[in-house]
Amino acid sequence: MPSRFSLQRRVQFYETDSAGIVHFSWFFRYVEEAEHALWRKAGLSIAPRESAVGFPRVSASFDFRSPLYFEDQFEVEIRVAAITAKTIRYSATVTRDQTEIAVGHLTITCVRKGPDGRLKAVEIPLEIADCFQVAE
Amino acid sequence: MPSRFSLQRRVQFYETDSAGIVHFSWFFRYVEEAEHALWRKAGLSIAPRESAVGFPRVSASFDFRSPLYFEDQFEVEIRVAAITAKTIRYSATVTRDQTEIAVGHLTITCVRKGPDGRLKAVEIPLEIADCFQVAE
Amino acid sequence: MPSRFSLQRRVQFYETDSAGIVHFSWFFRYVEEAEHALWRKAGLSIAPRESAVGFPRVSASFDFRSPLYFEDQFEVEIRVAAITAKTIRYSATVTRDQTEIAVGHLTITCVRKGPDGRLKAVEIPLEIADCFQVAE
Amino acid sequence: MPSRFSLQRRVQFYETDSAGIVHFSWFFRYVEEAEHALWRKAGLSIAPRESAVGFPRVSASFDFRSPLYFEDQFEVEIRVAAITAKTIRYSATVTRDQTEIAVGHLTITCVRKGPDGRLKAVEIPLEIADCFQVAE
Repeated sequence: MPSRFSLQRRVQFYETDSAGIVHFSWFFRYVEEAEHALWRKAGLSIAPRESAVGFPRVSASFDFRSPLYFEDQFEVEIRVAAITAKTIRYSATVTRDQTEIAVGHLTITCVRKGPDGRLKAVEIPLEIADCFQVAE
Repeated sequence: MPSRFSLQRRVQFYETDSAGIVHFSWFFRYVEEAEHALWRKAGLSIAPRESAVGFPRVSASFDFRSPLYFEDQFEVEIRVAAITAKTIRYSATVTRDQTEIAVGHLTITCVRKGPDGRLKAVEIPLEIADCFQVAE
Repeated sequence: MPSRFSLQRRVQFYETDSAGIVHFSWFFRYVEEAEHALWRKAGLSIAPRESAVGFPRVSASFDFRSPLYFEDQFEVEIRVAAITAKTIRYSATVTRDQTEIAVGHLTITCVRKGPDGRLKAVEIPLEIADCFQVAE
Repeated sequence: MPSRFSLQRRVQFYETDSAGIVHFSWFFRYVEEAEHALWRKAGLSIAPRESAVGFPRVSASFDFRSPLYFEDQFEVEIRVAAITAKTIRYSATVTRDQTEIAVGHLTITCVRKGPDGRLKAVEIPLEIADCFQVAE
């Protein structure tokens, strides 16, 4: 039962902005990339086609300490910080070599589409929740 | 029956790259923004929820003449260049003041999802095809 | 001296994901769009070419309450929540009609590039700080 | 002297749109990722900091044959199709297993920033041009 994943990544040109650094919106995509790799490590896809449930994000935050530049190689470490009946909370750290680049959090909730088309929070299916554990 | 649309737009910061100009991938999004505005002008949405048909892109190209910078105000003019039974071909021009920035083409085809989940090219429904005409 | 700005916006197709809703990373771009419009309202550009100072983001967060869909029209209201010697903190609310979609914060800091190329936090120039006031 | 590069890639969630497939604008980013990997294979960066020259894109096109879906693993093969004094033209093929997904072209030109800040086409420095050869 995995509790964390370390994604190795390189900055792509289209992720930079005219300040010459990675645009801050990309960190939220980086953490999601790491999350989905964590789910694959657990033997799961977070969004299989025709799935009855989905996992929209309900909260996301990052503090940025130092910039990333084009072609930098960096690491995104995501950890399962908490699991409740309907939500999973992750913490994440982005580092380049020994430099801390950013730290953040991401919380997702399990939803099912109701007959009226609206998303409704539901309990995470056990066959999913049982695949993860909280990181020490 | 509209045949063209002029989209007025301003360059956003996240559209620039570390060369200090708009990343070329954005022009393909600009032309699609203009296309969808053209469809709304025709009283249509290109992707209503629960629609039986969709319009994936089968061909797209741009020639880039001059760069766009952060906060530049520019215009995207899209024109219906040809309509066949299953496809619509547009031409597009991006200009800032009197300067030609880029010219391009976009071709879309009408598809329906088959029982096996695969997309299959089909004729454009008349209630859609009849809403457009080729630009002079 | 402006303290807030309301950006009127429509969801673009490329902002949606295969869950059928706007990808959460876009809200961080929406709030930045509103911020830059606030700066223009104050008579400023946040990133003029050849500027001696820049304003990287040091913190950003959003709580997501309800999804946005393709072609939805929505509003991003950004407010100046606090101004210190070196930072500006904004709060933001995204709404569609009467529905609260998301609430968030964004903090930026003023930096100058040192002779070694590293970014160093500096005081916000008075001709910029004096253009804003904290929202009531 | 490399003439081609094969990039192995997986579809990220934020690259999909509400049609459930990769948004077409991403293919132009995929080909650029492959291009920059080709330059690294040649021992170069296409955009080193403080470089005197840059390589904006002057032409880009793709024909799309089949869709890509979330988490699909695919390959982008980029080949040097032609080298002139000031330009490099690439061809590219995107495939998933044995399925042809898309084929395209990309042309870049070498520029130098003039004293007036305008970009001017110049000859590709020999130490760069000599690092590549046309693919057979």
